[in-house]
Amino acid sequence: MNFPIPSQIVERVIVQNKAFNLDSISIRGLVSLASGIESASGIEFIHMELGSPGLPSPQIGLDAEKNALDSGCTSIYPSIDGVPQLKTAASEFIKAFLNSTVPARCCVPTVGSMQGVLASFIATVTRDPQKDTVLFLDPGFAVQKQQLAVLGYKFVSVDIADHRGPEFRTFLRQMVQTNAISSVVYSNPNNPTWMCFTDNELEIIGDLATEFDFVVIEDLAYLCMDFRNDLSVPYNPPYQPTIARYTDNYILHISASKIFSYAGQRIAIAAISEKLFDREFANFEKRFAHSQFGMTYIYSVLYSLSAGVTHSVQFGLAAMFRAATIAQLDFVNQTRQYGARAIRLKEIFTKHGFLIAYPLDGDKEVADGFFFTISYPNMTGAELLKNLLHYGISAITLKATGANRCGLRACTSAIKPHHFEILNDRLSLFVKNHPIKP
Amino acid sequence: MNFPIPSQIVERVIVQNKAFNLDSISIRGLVSLASGIESASGIEFIHMELGSPGLPSPQIGLDAEKNALDSGCTSIYPSIDGVPQLKTAASEFIKAFLNSTVPARCCVPTVGSMQGVLASFIATVTRDPQKDTVLFLDPGFAVQKQQLAVLGYKFVSVDIADHRGPEFRTFLRQMVQTNAISSVVYSNPNNPTWMCFTDNELEIIGDLATEFDFVVIEDLAYLCMDFRNDLSVPYNPPYQPTIARYTDNYILHISASKIFSYAGQRIAIAAISEKLFDREFANFEKRFAHSQFGMTYIYSVLYSLSAGVTHSVQFGLAAMFRAATIAQLDFVNQTRQYGARAIRLKEIFTKHGFLIAYPLDGDKEVADGFFFTISYPNMTGAELLKNLLHYGISAITLKATGANRCGLRACTSAIKPHHFEILNDRLSLFVKNHPIKP
Repeated sequence: MNFPIPSQIVERVIVQNKAFNLDSISIRGLVSLASGIESASGIEFIHMELGSPGLPSPQIGLDAEKNALDSGCTSIYPSIDGVPQLKTAASEFIKAFLNSTVPARCCVPTVGSMQGVLASFIATVTRDPQKDTVLFLDPGFAVQKQQLAVLGYKFVSVDIADHRGPEFRTFLRQMVQTNAISSVVYSNPNNPTWMCFTDNELEIIGDLATEFDFVVIEDLAYLCMDFRNDLSVPYNPPYQPTIARYTDNYILHISASKIFSYAGQRIAIAAISEKLFDREFANFEKRFAHSQFGMTYIYSVLYSLSAGVTHSVQFGLAAMFRAATIAQLDFVNQTRQYGARAIRLKEIFTKHGFLIAYPLDGDKEVADGFFFTISYPNMTGAELLKNLLHYGISAITLKATGANRCGLRACTSAIKPHHFEILNDRLSLFVKNHPIKP
Repeated sequence: MNFPIPSQIVERVIVQNKAFNLDSISIRGLVSLASGIESASGIEFIHMELGSPGLPSPQIGLDAEKNALDSGCTSIYPSIDGVPQLKTAASEFIKAFLNSTVPARCCVPTVGSMQGVLASFIATVTRDPQKDTVLFLDPGFAVQKQQLAVLGYKFVSVDIADHRGPEFRTFLRQMVQTNAISSVVYSNPNNPTWMCFTDNELEIIGDLATEFDFVVIEDLAYLCMDFRNDLSVPYNPPYQPTIARYTDNYILHISASKIFSYAGQRIAIAAISEKLFDREFANFEKRFAHSQFGMTYIYSVLYSLSAGVTHSVQFGLAAMFRAATIAQLDFVNQTRQYGARAIRLKEIFTKHGFLIAYPLDGDKEVADGFFFTISYPNMTGAELLKNLLHYGISAITLKATGANRCGLRACTSAIKPHHFEILNDRLSLFVKNHPIKP
């Protein structure tokens, strides 16, 4: 066994995968590259690139799906706006864990938040031809920019890490004043840095959304995973911070993928502010059958995208939402182990001279959860990634996430207990071969 | 019980549904309108508007889904290009029933053909900025035009019913010569008229696709449902006619919704011609990570639309494809009852002076299947629909399908045995109240 993996092997697989630019490679492309090197070299990889949940799905969801399969729903088109059970359960879940009110009629299932955010881009950019630009509060999820490339939409991006705190309002106002902003998108907790917006920051975003009439697209993929506070008790504070408290211009995207480890089934909820749902827009009337935001979102956009969400899966998600809401499914506790893994991984990396690329959340240390960021002195993200590939370690570069800082995003979800020691050994060798110059 | 339903009731529900233009109402909007009148009046409706399959799903598909739910696939992101079993089974199914060769790597699952055709629109319009227009060989599926409105793409439409036969080649060449055609879309058998392209016509379309380098998007939603020929025996002629025999520029869309009565689960296959899959386009490289058509279709477009198709459902469809291919699931025979219903319904309508709006398929009488068209002397489609709503009968107007002729599309799928007599009685009354002027 040759270790580190010889450069000829790494280079050969890079050529096979046409993966010459490690900054622009997609996550799935990197999975394919790392797996290629893995099988060519026989070295087990520590995969930290794909944010796939590593926990089993709740049995209650699976059972509800099986019952639905027996009910005859498979032969009937799902209604585009979702089965009533799911709509009601989603509304209750939002009340229980966000302490916000979104009526059932405004909660719509989507084929994952991938489809949901895409629908929100289309609806918010289409509603007013004067506002044609999406603003990313980055670092963020790279595929959302690819969605805009597919749609041919404009966007601007800003790394907010250096603009939080007292100057946040002035900075953000400047951004939305000088651009024709249709919508602002971010994830909270943040993918990739795990920064979490405070209520004060969300209030600022909300104020500006109301003043400048843009829509906040809030991606809550990692809902309740800021483990510094116990957000696990339904109908009890503290609650997941959310923009829903601070403006009527919002769409929340709540995916089952991470919170319920249900990524395989492709389902999420788009929860549209009731006031926004009922607003009418002349440009919708010109292009579609409806002028109302909610009707257009559902019956023009979502209908066109997939004619609804897999019928049986809707019953599965409804059952899990309901179980969580009545405290029979502690989904927050299930995901705590991501945080525990992050603590150990960050210790190992920093012990060997790696840095946390985004170490702070405001003036506090950043929390531990699904993702963390690393950097290494005097290496760009792409250089670091290429070097780590020789050590059987893969992660994605921060460049594609809209980050100003160099480094990598590492995901804790695929980490198995035996990986910690292997990682420690490999990084010891890495540091020896790539000594940090003083 | 007041019958016909009083106009005050019909008008009131129309106002409630804001359904003032019955030509532009969506199918789902009409379902909602008809159901509203149904509950306001207490009169059972004969619903012929929504093409939802009316048959139970095959148990073999449901069982495979349940096994998949137990296998752990629900917690893992599906690979975007589909699970290997499904890709292989789809390729074999295409060989068995279309006698065409599309390798497994070129067969990709989509969230219904709704998502598949949308992806084909995006990929074909994006590959070359000089070719930005979609050509519909109409009448067709109205929602596909709504998809283009959502995307902001251009299209041209032509009712081909009057241009078939000897002049077809000249007519079609003229159309593609004078427009910047990226892709040509039709369904075969045709929704709504149930016309079926002959091999000779498909050859003409294929020749022009090769000569003018546009992509044919063939929607095979009603595959093997031209019951005039027995297309039910795998690997035996006659086969479902398909464009795949006549050009390398094609994408076939094979949905599970109708052929397997699986509409609830939202799954279909996009089968891309191998030559097209491997072609490279400079404009893809500019916008996305790849230049190859197939890679862009899967990893840029489909990834952005939903990050794959529900994992467990992929195993369900794989099992049904496999069973059909080894003649253990006679899906064609299952759907024959749609044809039997069409025969009886058409008899009842024509007995009362209704006409078949599109009576011919070439020089033969049109076949009997999932849909048929009706018209009534001296009434537009919208007038006929509004009048029929008073008699508890609903269908969609042909106007939205791109048809030149007036009338309605009627679907046989929701027809129950007791409906035939009711329909006969109601139409007797209809004709008395709306006598046909000589």
